[in-house]
Amino acid sequence: MTATEVQKARAASVFNRESLESILRGRFFYAPAFDIYGGVSGLYDYGPPGCAFQANVVDTWRKHFILEEDMLEVDCTMLTPYEVLKTSGHVDKFSDWMCRDLKTGEIFRADHLVEEVLEARLKGDKEARGIAADPEEEESADKKKRKKKVKQIKAIKLEDDVAKEYEMVLAKIDGYSGEELGELMVKYSINNPATDGPLEPPMAFNLMFETAIGPSGQLRGFLRPETAQGQFLNFNKLLEFNNSKTPFASASIGKSFRNEISPRAGLLRVREFLMAEIEHFVDPMDKSHPKFGDVKDITLSFLPRGVQEAGSTVPITETIGKAVESKMIDNETLGYFIGRIYQFLVKIGVDKTKLRFRQHMGNEMAHYATDCWDGELLTSYGWIECVGCADRSAFDLTVHSNKTKEKMVVREKLETPIEVTKYEIDLTKKLFGPKFRKDAPLVEKFLLDLSQTELEAKASELKSNGKVVFQINGIEGDVELDDKFINIEKRTKVEHVREYVPNVIEPSFGIGRIIYAVFEHSFWNRPEDTARGVLSFPPLVAPSKVLLVPLSNNKELQPVTKKVSDILRKAQIPFKVDDSGVSIGKRYSRNDELGTPFGVTIDFDSVKDGSVTLRERDSTQQVRGSVEDIIKAIKDITYFGVSWEEGTKNLEVFTSSQ
Amino acid sequence: MTATEVQKARAASVFNRESLESILRGRFFYAPAFDIYGGVSGLYDYGPPGCAFQANVVDTWRKHFILEEDMLEVDCTMLTPYEVLKTSGHVDKFSDWMCRDLKTGEIFRADHLVEEVLEARLKGDKEARGIAADPEEEESADKKKRKKKVKQIKAIKLEDDVAKEYEMVLAKIDGYSGEELGELMVKYSINNPATDGPLEPPMAFNLMFETAIGPSGQLRGFLRPETAQGQFLNFNKLLEFNNSKTPFASASIGKSFRNEISPRAGLLRVREFLMAEIEHFVDPMDKSHPKFGDVKDITLSFLPRGVQEAGSTVPITETIGKAVESKMIDNETLGYFIGRIYQFLVKIGVDKTKLRFRQHMGNEMAHYATDCWDGELLTSYGWIECVGCADRSAFDLTVHSNKTKEKMVVREKLETPIEVTKYEIDLTKKLFGPKFRKDAPLVEKFLLDLSQTELEAKASELKSNGKVVFQINGIEGDVELDDKFINIEKRTKVEHVREYVPNVIEPSFGIGRIIYAVFEHSFWNRPEDTARGVLSFPPLVAPSKVLLVPLSNNKELQPVTKKVSDILRKAQIPFKVDDSGVSIGKRYSRNDELGTPFGVTIDFDSVKDGSVTLRERDSTQQVRGSVEDIIKAIKDITYFGVSWEEGTKNLEVFTSSQ
Repeated sequence: MTATEVQKARAASVFNRESLESILRGRFFYAPAFDIYGGVSGLYDYGPPGCAFQANVVDTWRKHFILEEDMLEVDCTMLTPYEVLKTSGHVDKFSDWMCRDLKTGEIFRADHLVEEVLEARLKGDKEARGIAADPEEEESADKKKRKKKVKQIKAIKLEDDVAKEYEMVLAKIDGYSGEELGELMVKYSINNPATDGPLEPPMAFNLMFETAIGPSGQLRGFLRPETAQGQFLNFNKLLEFNNSKTPFASASIGKSFRNEISPRAGLLRVREFLMAEIEHFVDPMDKSHPKFGDVKDITLSFLPRGVQEAGSTVPITETIGKAVESKMIDNETLGYFIGRIYQFLVKIGVDKTKLRFRQHMGNEMAHYATDCWDGELLTSYGWIECVGCADRSAFDLTVHSNKTKEKMVVREKLETPIEVTKYEIDLTKKLFGPKFRKDAPLVEKFLLDLSQTELEAKASELKSNGKVVFQINGIEGDVELDDKFINIEKRTKVEHVREYVPNVIEPSFGIGRIIYAVFEHSFWNRPEDTARGVLSFPPLVAPSKVLLVPLSNNKELQPVTKKVSDILRKAQIPFKVDDSGVSIGKRYSRNDELGTPFGVTIDFDSVKDGSVTLRERDSTQQVRGSVEDIIKAIKDITYFGVSWEEGTKNLEVFTSSQ
Repeated sequence: MTATEVQKARAASVFNRESLESILRGRFFYAPAFDIYGGVSGLYDYGPPGCAFQANVVDTWRKHFILEEDMLEVDCTMLTPYEVLKTSGHVDKFSDWMCRDLKTGEIFRADHLVEEVLEARLKGDKEARGIAADPEEEESADKKKRKKKVKQIKAIKLEDDVAKEYEMVLAKIDGYSGEELGELMVKYSINNPATDGPLEPPMAFNLMFETAIGPSGQLRGFLRPETAQGQFLNFNKLLEFNNSKTPFASASIGKSFRNEISPRAGLLRVREFLMAEIEHFVDPMDKSHPKFGDVKDITLSFLPRGVQEAGSTVPITETIGKAVESKMIDNETLGYFIGRIYQFLVKIGVDKTKLRFRQHMGNEMAHYATDCWDGELLTSYGWIECVGCADRSAFDLTVHSNKTKEKMVVREKLETPIEVTKYEIDLTKKLFGPKFRKDAPLVEKFLLDLSQTELEAKASELKSNGKVVFQINGIEGDVELDDKFINIEKRTKVEHVREYVPNVIEPSFGIGRIIYAVFEHSFWNRPEDTARGVLSFPPLVAPSKVLLVPLSNNKELQPVTKKVSDILRKAQIPFKVDDSGVSIGKRYSRNDELGTPFGVTIDFDSVKDGSVTLRERDSTQQVRGSVEDIIKAIKDITYFGVSWEEGTKNLEVFTSSQ
C-alpha cells in the first residue's frame, strides 16, 4: 500500500469500540485495577504497552513544553492540608451534583442523567419519525451500555418545540447549577431510568478524597484535585529562581484525584489520573506573546461562547491570529498556548479533524476567569474535554497571599519613573498602645489596609468632623479616632518600581483522556481482513519501536539477532524480539495490535551478507539494507520527524518474492 | 586542577550539612511543601533543579533496569481497597510503635526514641571519659537538633558493662518488637527527653493513610504503602503478555505513602515518596541467573546477619560470587540484583565507599522471606536504608490467590513426563443436591479443597467406618457422608506439565532517599575558597548539562548565543543561558551550586571565528573549539560515558590569559 492508500483505508474503516477494547485489554494496554478482587470503578492500571505509551507521551510533553519554552518544572505533594484547599475554593466548590434514589440506594450524577435521558428521548423521537440514526451510534456495545443506564429507547415522537427545547438544553448542559438541574428534572419528569422511581433533588457532593495526616489524626488533608495549587504556593521561590524575570511559566506532571460520583466511560472518567499543568505568569497589562507569530496562521475549529448560548454546536473555522484579533480569544498568550496545545496533540497522534476548541459559557466559567477554552477530542463517547486553557487572572495568587499574608508580586523597575497621586494614612503609633492595649495591632492593621476609596471618604469625614468612626471585626463597639491619632492626605510621589500580582494562563492536560482519544483515532482495520486491527501510533510515542523477527528458530540466525539487538540497545531504541515459532504473518499481526511501527526481519541472507528487511506497519512496505542503514532510517523516522519515503530513499525496495 | 587534584580536594573537604542545606534550599532543589502555610512535616516539594535531577535518576533507572533487562513496566493506582491490603498483611502489620506522653500530648516513635536516648548517653559517657567525639558529629546543626529531641547531652560516665549493653542494643535496634521496646524503656528509664515525664507503653500505629472511595463512603481504601501489590495482582496478565515465559520481571515507578509518626531528617523520612520497585518472578527450584557472571567479581561491603547479632557493625568485604557461593547471600538471582543495584547507584553518583549491604536479622525479616538485604548509604544522619532487596518466596501470590480463588501459577511443559502418586476424591454429584440443597456447592467445594494429608486421613476413616464426618464452616452441625457420596483413592498418573507458584525477588528503591544521599556524596567546597560549594553530579543525572555564558551583554554576542542555543535545543541537551550582568566568576559559582557540569563561554573571538570555550565544573579546566566539536564532546561525556580527557583530547587547552 502507498501512504495515500493507507489514508483511504483508514478513512474507510468502520470504527468499532468493542474490537478496540478487546485489543487494548487483550494486549494489556490497560486493565481494571484490582481486577481479581472484582475491580473498583474508576480505577485502571496500565500494562506494559500502555505504560510505555504514557511514558512517551509525557516525555514528548516535557520536551514540547518544558524544554522548548524553558519552563520551570516542580514536583509537589499530592497530600494537601485543608487550609490550602479551603482558600483555593475547592472545599466549598469542587463538587458535582448528585441525586439519590432513596428506595434503591442508587446515586446518579445529575447533569449526566439529564443529558442521557434527553438524548435517549431525542433518539426515540428520530426513530419514531423514521430518521436513520448515525450508524456509529448504533453499534451493539453502545446499545448494551445504554440499556443499563437509560431505559431502553422508545420510539416516541416528541412535539417539534419540545425536541428543539431538549436540543437547546443539551447544548448548554455544562452550564447549569444544581438548582437549575433540579428544575429541569421536575419540568421534564426525569426519574431513575431503571425503575422510573423518584429521585431526591440534586445535592452537592465534594469530589476530593479526604484523609488525616499524622498520628493524632487532627490535621485534615485531601488528595489534590489538580497540580496547580503547588505551583501557586511556590510562586515566590520560582520567581527568585528565574532571577526575578517575568513572564515565566512553571509546570507539573503528576497524579491527581477526583472521587467521581459514578465513573463510567472507561479511561475517560477515572478517580485517579495523570495531569500535566502549566502556570504561565504574565503581566496583566501586557498579555502579548513574543512567539505568537509562530502559531497565528494555524487554522482551528472553534466553538465560541455565543454559538453555544444560541443553542448551536456548529463550529467556526478560523486562524488563531484572526480569533485573537477579533477578541474571540481574549489575548495573545492564551492564543499562543491554544496553538501549542494543537501542535502537541497532533504530534502524539490526535486526528486533527476530531479536535475542536470550545469556549466556556459565562455561567460555566469561574467568576474570576477572563476567558477559558477546552480542547475537546471527538471519541465514540462524544466530544470529550481533554485540555483546558484558562486565563485565571490574579485569583489564585491573591487568595493565597491574602490568607497567608505572604506577598506574591512582581516588582518591575520602571524605565521612566512615574508620578503617582494617592491617599496615604499616617498613624501616631505611640498613642495606639495606651488607648487600645492588646487590640492596638489589630486597629493599626485595619487602618493600613484601607482601600483608596475608603481613605478618600474617611479623609473628608476627618476634615469635617475632626474625627472618624470605624467598625472593626474582632473589636466590640465603635472605634473612634480623632486627628491626633491619624492623618489622611493626598500626596504625589515618584515611583521607580511597579508592583503587580501577575495573571495566570493555565493550560491543563488530562493525559489519560488524551491517550484514550489517541487510541481511538489510531485504530483501524485492514481492508483485506477486517478482523485485523492496527494501532497506527506515530513512531515517536509508540510503546516499542521495533519488532525483531528471526525468520525461524534456526540457530544460524541467532548471532545476527543478537548483533541487531545489541545495536538497538546501544542506540536506546526500545524493541522486542519475537522468536516464537508462529508464522511471520501472525507475528506481524500481533505487532500491529501493539502499534509497533517497524519490523526487522532476519533471514538466511542476513547471515551471508548482513542485510535485513525493514517493514513499515501501516503500508506493510518493505525495504532492505545493511543493519546500520536500517537502524539509521528507524532513528531518523522515529526521533527526527523524517518521513518513511525520505528516510528509506537510499534503501532497496523489497518484495516477499525475493 | 587535574582529576587527581579534584579527588584530593573533595576528600579533604569537611562536610557541613548546614551549608549543603542552605544551597539546596537557596537554589530551590527542594522546599518544605505548603511553606507559606507553615508547612506540614514530612512533605516536601522539588523545585526545578531537584525535579530535573529526579527525572534524570528515574530515566537512568528505567534504562538500567527496565530496558536493559527487558522488564514489563506497569503503572497501577495508588488508591487501594481495604481487602487487598488486608490480604497482603498491611492492615494488620504495617505499623510502627508509638509512645504517648499523656501530659504533654507529644507522640514519639519508640525505636527512634530508644536509639536517640542511648546514643546520647553513650556520647555523654565518652565526654566524661575525655574521649574526643567524632568531629563530624559535633557540628552545630546537629547539636541544635539533638537538643530539641534529646535533652542536652550530659557528660556522665556509665559503668563499663552498661555502655557495652547499650552498644549491643543499638546494633540490634531494628529487630525489636513493641513489647521488647517497652521493656527496654522501663529497664533503662527512658522517658520524654524534654520533660523527663513518663510515657505510655508502645502501641502499634498503622502507617497507611485511609480514605473512602465513592459517594456513599462505604468502600474503605488506603493510599498504597508500596507499588508492589499492583504488580502481584496483575501477575496473570503479565505472564500472558510475556507469552507465558518465565522467569520475568515487572517494574513500577510511582509515589507511595506512609503516615510517619514524627517525620524528621528532611528528605530521608517523608510521608509521600517516589519508589521504583521490581518484582522478579522465578522458579523456586531454580534461582540461578544467566547473567550472574556479569556481576560475580564485584567486591562489596556486606554486613551479614551473624555479625549484627553478635553486636558488631564491622562489615565484611567480599565479591558477590563468593558471597553466593558461601550461601551468605541465599541465591544467584538475589546476588545478581545486589550487583545491579550497586552499578546503578554508582552510575548516578553514590560514593561507593559510603555504601554497604546489610542483611536483615532473623526477627527483623518477614516470616515468609528467604533472605533480605538493605542497600544502605552513609549520610550525616548515619547509615540509611535506601534500597531493599528481598526474596519474598511465594507469599504474595499465594495469599492473593487464596483470597480471590484466582489461580496464579506458572505451567511448565515437562521435557520428560513424570509419574505422580496422590490421593484423589470423587463426588457422586447427583446425590448432593437432594441432600444438602442450597448448601450443596459449599460442601462440594470444601471436599475438593481438602489437602493431601486430610485426604489420607479421611480415606482410612472411610475404609474402616464406611462413612466420614466433617465440620464445615457455614453449616450447622456435623456433615456425614458415606461411600455412596464419596470415594477417596490413591492413584498414580503421568503428568506432562509442572505447575508452580513462582517466587519473587524484590529490589525496591526509595528514590528520594537515594537522591538526598547523592546530594551529600556530591557536595564539597573549593579549597581556595571554602565558602564556594560545588555539587559534583555525574553529567548523566545533572539537572542541566550546560550553562551558556556570553562574556557580556554586548549585542554583538547575541547571534552566537542564539546559534549555540538552537544547536543544543536540537540535540536535546538541557541547558540554561545566563546573560545576567554579573561577573563570569559569579555566574560559574552560582552554577557550581546547581551542579551543572559544563560551561560554554561566548566571547568576541566567537563572533570572529565561531569558536567557544568549554569549562569543566570540577577541575575548572577549559578547552576551545568549534561549536560543533564542543557540543560533540558534551554529548559524548554526558550520555556515552566518555571521560573528560578522552572527550576533549582533540580540543585546544584554553587558559584565561589567552
